[in-house]
Amino acid sequence: MTSQDAPQQADEQIQPGAPMGAPRLVRDQGVTAPLGFRAAGIAAGIKASGADDLALVFNEGPDHTAAGVFTKNQVKAAPVLWSQQVLTTGRLRAVILNSGGANACTGPEGFGDTHRTAEAVAAALSNWGTSTGAVEVAVCSTGLIGDRLPMDKVLAGVTEIVQDMGGGLSGGTDAAYAIMTTDTVPKQAALHHPDGWNVGGMGKGAGMMAPSLATMLCVLTTDAQASAEQLDLALRRAAARTFDRLDIDGSTSTNDTVLLLSSGASQIPVGQDDLDAAVFTVCDELAAQLMADAEGVTKRVTITVAGAVMEDDALAVARTVARDSLVKTALFGSDANWGRVLAAVGISPVTIDPDRIAVTFNGSPVCRNGHGVPGARDVDLSGTDITVDIDLGLGDASASIRTTDLSHAYVEENSAYSS
Amino acid sequence: MTSQDAPQQADEQIQPGAPMGAPRLVRDQGVTAPLGFRAAGIAAGIKASGADDLALVFNEGPDHTAAGVFTKNQVKAAPVLWSQQVLTTGRLRAVILNSGGANACTGPEGFGDTHRTAEAVAAALSNWGTSTGAVEVAVCSTGLIGDRLPMDKVLAGVTEIVQDMGGGLSGGTDAAYAIMTTDTVPKQAALHHPDGWNVGGMGKGAGMMAPSLATMLCVLTTDAQASAEQLDLALRRAAARTFDRLDIDGSTSTNDTVLLLSSGASQIPVGQDDLDAAVFTVCDELAAQLMADAEGVTKRVTITVAGAVMEDDALAVARTVARDSLVKTALFGSDANWGRVLAAVGISPVTIDPDRIAVTFNGSPVCRNGHGVPGARDVDLSGTDITVDIDLGLGDASASIRTTDLSHAYVEENSAYSS
Repeated sequence: MTSQDAPQQADEQIQPGAPMGAPRLVRDQGVTAPLGFRAAGIAAGIKASGADDLALVFNEGPDHTAAGVFTKNQVKAAPVLWSQQVLTTGRLRAVILNSGGANACTGPEGFGDTHRTAEAVAAALSNWGTSTGAVEVAVCSTGLIGDRLPMDKVLAGVTEIVQDMGGGLSGGTDAAYAIMTTDTVPKQAALHHPDGWNVGGMGKGAGMMAPSLATMLCVLTTDAQASAEQLDLALRRAAARTFDRLDIDGSTSTNDTVLLLSSGASQIPVGQDDLDAAVFTVCDELAAQLMADAEGVTKRVTITVAGAVMEDDALAVARTVARDSLVKTALFGSDANWGRVLAAVGISPVTIDPDRIAVTFNGSPVCRNGHGVPGARDVDLSGTDITVDIDLGLGDASASIRTTDLSHAYVEENSAYSS
Repeated sequence: MTSQDAPQQADEQIQPGAPMGAPRLVRDQGVTAPLGFRAAGIAAGIKASGADDLALVFNEGPDHTAAGVFTKNQVKAAPVLWSQQVLTTGRLRAVILNSGGANACTGPEGFGDTHRTAEAVAAALSNWGTSTGAVEVAVCSTGLIGDRLPMDKVLAGVTEIVQDMGGGLSGGTDAAYAIMTTDTVPKQAALHHPDGWNVGGMGKGAGMMAPSLATMLCVLTTDAQASAEQLDLALRRAAARTFDRLDIDGSTSTNDTVLLLSSGASQIPVGQDDLDAAVFTVCDELAAQLMADAEGVTKRVTITVAGAVMEDDALAVARTVARDSLVKTALFGSDANWGRVLAAVGISPVTIDPDRIAVTFNGSPVCRNGHGVPGARDVDLSGTDITVDIDLGLGDASASIRTTDLSHAYVEENSAYSS
């Protein structure tokens, strides 16, 4: 975690491999790490390639509280409209996710397809022995915008996947594989709290980092006892500081969805602060994995803005720099062209004082009081990880954005996707 | 002119080669097309390559009214700060322009360099026989941010260029060459009004289309009799509809400057409407030339948004689409991926109704009522010019933005500039 603005308790308490007594983060476990969850991933034939394309996460209970955050894009895919609606109850029993098609911009027919999918999942789970209604099933889709899904394959897949779901860790891993589109590796993380409860999660894509908007889908699970309100607070706070601060190309997909489900199966009630810290840690780890696997990435870049009057100001400046094509191409070229950083700061929607700005690249000062320092152009940016620290010299607030460079591979992979 | 929002009179009145009685636009004449102007361009040794790098535009009068518009970047180069200050008088006798260095982020020393340059021009013009003060000299610079200019070469060049300036058309063309950085051709345009007065102009760069922010510099001249207030109105109106609507990568340089000088040498007073139309036409032509020569461009793209409630809304949506990396990479790939256009519309800062959006590519419908039409993915985008027309279905206002694709050449040329 490189953000200066992360909750302090997360950095202090949570260290992978730390001795008993501290929360423990692991990277090879996902949504089935907490008690009370089953999951599966199968190839339903939605993707022409024959790769896995359908995933299910099932909450066995006893609790079924849930919360979600969704894309801020005004053009929302059918599954987003559906899942927002069913989540008004604060309750979910299952999440069905497909890759191979976004089901966005598909009109009322597309919404009908989502509805039918949720009904099929509910019917299959009811047949399996758990009485379930369609309003207890969230739906997530990812893939190309504008095409209808092959519903015969989706519905046959639903029947199959409910038979297939297992309670072990492998079910969660299968699900993490099945939601991949252009991801090269599955993304999972789990946190084991010393008090005996757990949080797990899986994710794919990120912002618009990958072709055709690379929907970010993420499902988080916990066996802690927590109300829907607790889950909602923890999820919003974590997403705001992790996924919302991962900005590959400034775009937001029509399908972005992050869900958090609680089974309460540990029978351990959790306080808000502990839940916040645990959910944040898992989201932060998934965000780091998403950045590392961004399409066309050759550099992992963290832009930190300090010295702002308010945190929102720091965030707005960091975001403007992170989205600037000229900054991103310079970083691709390992070029310490700090003037482009200053020009980007100057067009951010925040009032700044050009004569107070200081910039360091990888910890080496390149600009002080708004102009260059000797040797600025010689800073070595040839490594994969680059930190850009900007001090506005106006206040005490700070914020970080994770981004990537703008590379040939990005252009290549995004210039020929739908065709 | 492809914008639907251009002033109607411009399209109707001004046609190259039109019969006498209509304003006539020519593309091989520039700042010395109007009476009362001299110009020159020389190699002063500022550029390591030895190419021309210093230009002068001199207004012989009898009038010396002037107006300017400048970058909105809060990080402003020294010459911008200087020229803004001297233009508060509404009066200019000369403009000195250098390529080979932006003189931005150079601190008080950089501002001193600009001041000394203006003083040297004033002294040289006074020696030459025209009593001139430094406050009558605007300064423009373009090139890499962050380095001081080689002032010995600049000052020696100033002495030489004042000797060199000629009154013919070739002086204007020499100046247009000398302000080029990564431009491949000089940009000039002139309009001859049937009433006997003229407007001329030269430009370089555009927005941030070229490496290191590609400062847009433009000098316009007229021999019409016009007050500083008239010039200011005409220039602001024209820039808002031309240069401000050319958006290559969403960035704004530290040095952008557009100046308009009147000599009044035709002795013909001009009405505001005629002046507005003529200045618009020359600016529009220069903007088209700038787009066509953008670095790495393989597609010239015009995004038009109609059906908006207000023109500002249409402009905001068009700008969001024009800046979207995924739309721009799809266009580079000649890929009719209309879903990316809808997703970009959805993240614009304007309230839209997804179910009313219609989109055409090159005049062929690809999306209606927010979802695809048959054959949408087969529209031929293989040509160089692409029009994207978006109808929001909410009102009567419209606006256009000119942009380009995002190509390998863009990445290549911007990833290795300062080093």
